[in-house]
Amino acid sequence: MITSIDLLGERLQKALGDRATTDPDRMGAYVRDQSLLTAAGRPAALVKAKTVDDVVAVMTVAHELSVPVVTRGAGTGLAGAANALDGCIVLSVAGMDRILEIDPAARTATVEPGVINGDLAEAAAQQGLWYVPDPGSRAISSIGGNLATNAGGICCAKYGVTGDHVAALTAVLADGRVIRTGARTRKNVAGLDLTHLLVGSEGTLAVIVEATMRLRTAPTAATTVVAFFDSAESAIDAVLAVSAVAEPCQMELMDDVTIGAVNRLTRMGLDESAGAMLLIQCDGRSAAAEAADCAAACESAGAREVFHTDDPVEGEEFTAARRMALPALEALGTVLLDDVAVPVPALPSMLGCIREAADRHGVTIGTFGHAADGNLHPTIVFDAAESGAQDRARGAFDDIVAGALALGGTISGEHGIGVLKAPYMADMVGQTERQLMLAVKAAFDPKSILNPGRGI
Amino acid sequence: MITSIDLLGERLQKALGDRATTDPDRMGAYVRDQSLLTAAGRPAALVKAKTVDDVVAVMTVAHELSVPVVTRGAGTGLAGAANALDGCIVLSVAGMDRILEIDPAARTATVEPGVINGDLAEAAAQQGLWYVPDPGSRAISSIGGNLATNAGGICCAKYGVTGDHVAALTAVLADGRVIRTGARTRKNVAGLDLTHLLVGSEGTLAVIVEATMRLRTAPTAATTVVAFFDSAESAIDAVLAVSAVAEPCQMELMDDVTIGAVNRLTRMGLDESAGAMLLIQCDGRSAAAEAADCAAACESAGAREVFHTDDPVEGEEFTAARRMALPALEALGTVLLDDVAVPVPALPSMLGCIREAADRHGVTIGTFGHAADGNLHPTIVFDAAESGAQDRARGAFDDIVAGALALGGTISGEHGIGVLKAPYMADMVGQTERQLMLAVKAAFDPKSILNPGRGI
Repeated sequence: MITSIDLLGERLQKALGDRATTDPDRMGAYVRDQSLLTAAGRPAALVKAKTVDDVVAVMTVAHELSVPVVTRGAGTGLAGAANALDGCIVLSVAGMDRILEIDPAARTATVEPGVINGDLAEAAAQQGLWYVPDPGSRAISSIGGNLATNAGGICCAKYGVTGDHVAALTAVLADGRVIRTGARTRKNVAGLDLTHLLVGSEGTLAVIVEATMRLRTAPTAATTVVAFFDSAESAIDAVLAVSAVAEPCQMELMDDVTIGAVNRLTRMGLDESAGAMLLIQCDGRSAAAEAADCAAACESAGAREVFHTDDPVEGEEFTAARRMALPALEALGTVLLDDVAVPVPALPSMLGCIREAADRHGVTIGTFGHAADGNLHPTIVFDAAESGAQDRARGAFDDIVAGALALGGTISGEHGIGVLKAPYMADMVGQTERQLMLAVKAAFDPKSILNPGRGI
Repeated sequence: MITSIDLLGERLQKALGDRATTDPDRMGAYVRDQSLLTAAGRPAALVKAKTVDDVVAVMTVAHELSVPVVTRGAGTGLAGAANALDGCIVLSVAGMDRILEIDPAARTATVEPGVINGDLAEAAAQQGLWYVPDPGSRAISSIGGNLATNAGGICCAKYGVTGDHVAALTAVLADGRVIRTGARTRKNVAGLDLTHLLVGSEGTLAVIVEATMRLRTAPTAATTVVAFFDSAESAIDAVLAVSAVAEPCQMELMDDVTIGAVNRLTRMGLDESAGAMLLIQCDGRSAAAEAADCAAACESAGAREVFHTDDPVEGEEFTAARRMALPALEALGTVLLDDVAVPVPALPSMLGCIREAADRHGVTIGTFGHAADGNLHPTIVFDAAESGAQDRARGAFDDIVAGALALGGTISGEHGIGVLKAPYMADMVGQTERQLMLAVKAAFDPKSILNPGRGI
């Protein structure tokens, strides 16, 4: 870095006042996201932006001085994409947290990037509308981060991921210019689709400063089916059978390790002798009839026990239990959370691969995930204090990612590449494709100052 | 063009044999698409590709000799994106028309780009599956063209446009290298989203040579509601009211001019004294109940007559009538078909703007379209033999596009930019945004040989 921190600090403070700092003691909470085993550098400065102009000012200074910028929202990422780089400006947009407009007739919400997903969902609900994308982190993650990672969630199989709900974006380019992409109309084919290029780009192309998201009319109450199976394989048979006859708004899988961990934490009395559990919910006018068909499909696929309820409170208890899967596994030790997806018919092979990885490396792995999407979160539990345990965990992690690739899957279904998955990009994306992605990045960011080395 | 046609022909014929020609007499059917008032140049060569290797050979020669390439599928485009450029190679992929695989368990179809949309739909239906995107041209348009324009259709409001159904693409770059984008998994966030960048790029970034499209389980029979209104404005009130209570798989609007034209062609006895007609269909398990709510919403919004049927044959007759809207208007004279979209609440203003344009320029305009998407096809009818008529038609067309922009809409909802809408791009997309799109094109196509000057 040729630029001294003093000069950078001076320029930022001149433009941004006390929203900028170079004091390392004030940056502690802004250096990392929530990922494990990901490197983080020492930032030169932190800016807590409040307005689009603040972001423009940061990028103008950064561009002129060729200083890297790492943008972060709520910092709940799981791949290290928001970890600081040495000498970077950490640009927090968490303070840009206003819901600018909810338009009930057009069914859109226009928000700043720091708005928390759950807050938007609540504001929409107050107007009888529904903000659909529901990542597990929805209570704490921001729309900007959800867009930057193209966050998934539980209802994706029926309703799509975050990027499927975006209409238009405003973003600040690497050189401080502001662009608007997309349209408020439901259909628009004018020019290249820059909107979906920004979605999932992990802060490498531009800084999203405003988003117009689509809303739906409020959902109906869901009907819930819970089914226990002897083996994860027969649970996947049920997933395929259900998918052929119904379109559940969630179809979540928990394996035996996860069931046990959740039971210990919640004392819910789930059947710990089962090999796997499916949690299925159907919504819409035909929720009950659809759920009955799901239950029948589970039984045909060999479920040992099927439970079926129209009571939303009871259903919510099961959803809450599923949402406890990660905390429950975290209660068992240090966890390394993976995120792979395969075509649904390949799930049994993927589960076999995960078991083999656990055996080979002598680690415990609890697997849960979004079965209808083929998106699993194998969660490697280890004792961080034990010598070599971290290496064994990483070994299992590597084997799982390699297994997903071998099955025609992806190295990340919804958490992103960041730092954690960067080593696998060369196996996921061919050399020509990667060159092309980097050329596209260069078109946006010729000096490569936006989260360089991440995401691509 | 420095390269002589002789050298180009020699190189192409060496690589491609009789699949390449420089004989103008053999190119006639490959010079234009189906658009009106769009310029087309004189191509230097035509290649009818049969394989990916053929496309690679064309691009390798074109890149070396810096010859522009215009790719075309079935040639049913409505914006001139597939019109030849002077001295170009016309690359037809219509002959790459094999359905390579339908995977019922993963619910995907992998196809070559020349496969006709309707043929894919039929092949999927034979396996109890559903290829959803249904552009008006589905009987004659190809999947490659549907992808290149991100074609819409009738069922988009509920099920999305072509790009919402694509999983993975194989494409040949400007220099002949082959890339694979996306994944067969339902979710994938590895790297930049090149797939959706290619979708809608109108042959400017790469040549799509294979596509893996998602299928759904077969649809249920639809229930149909037909409602007549005194005015188009009250029909739009009904569109908003219906959207608040139901999610129809189609909600099509026809204005008085269109109703009259369709009646003359089909003798269906539609109410010609009505100001507008809505054709609504609901599918799924609750089709009948949902349709009843749609009918009630239409009545509340002031419909003068509401007709409701569960009989699929009767419903199909109305859908067929709607599909006759364009041919029926074509029977009245030469037509210039527009394609604009606005936020749904702005539709009454848009319809007013269309009427004003008709009055101002002394032309007849029949308007129909996808009301739930805010996507209208104002169709300007004129007598091409009459002096000045074409200019008046173009004047009305310009006013309609300007009106859509003024209402926060888009210059193209589903037909694309091509040649026809290119003059409006500067008003639709800001200068910085357009520079960025061109920089992205340059990243893919540094010599700018892929459909230069189109689409962006």
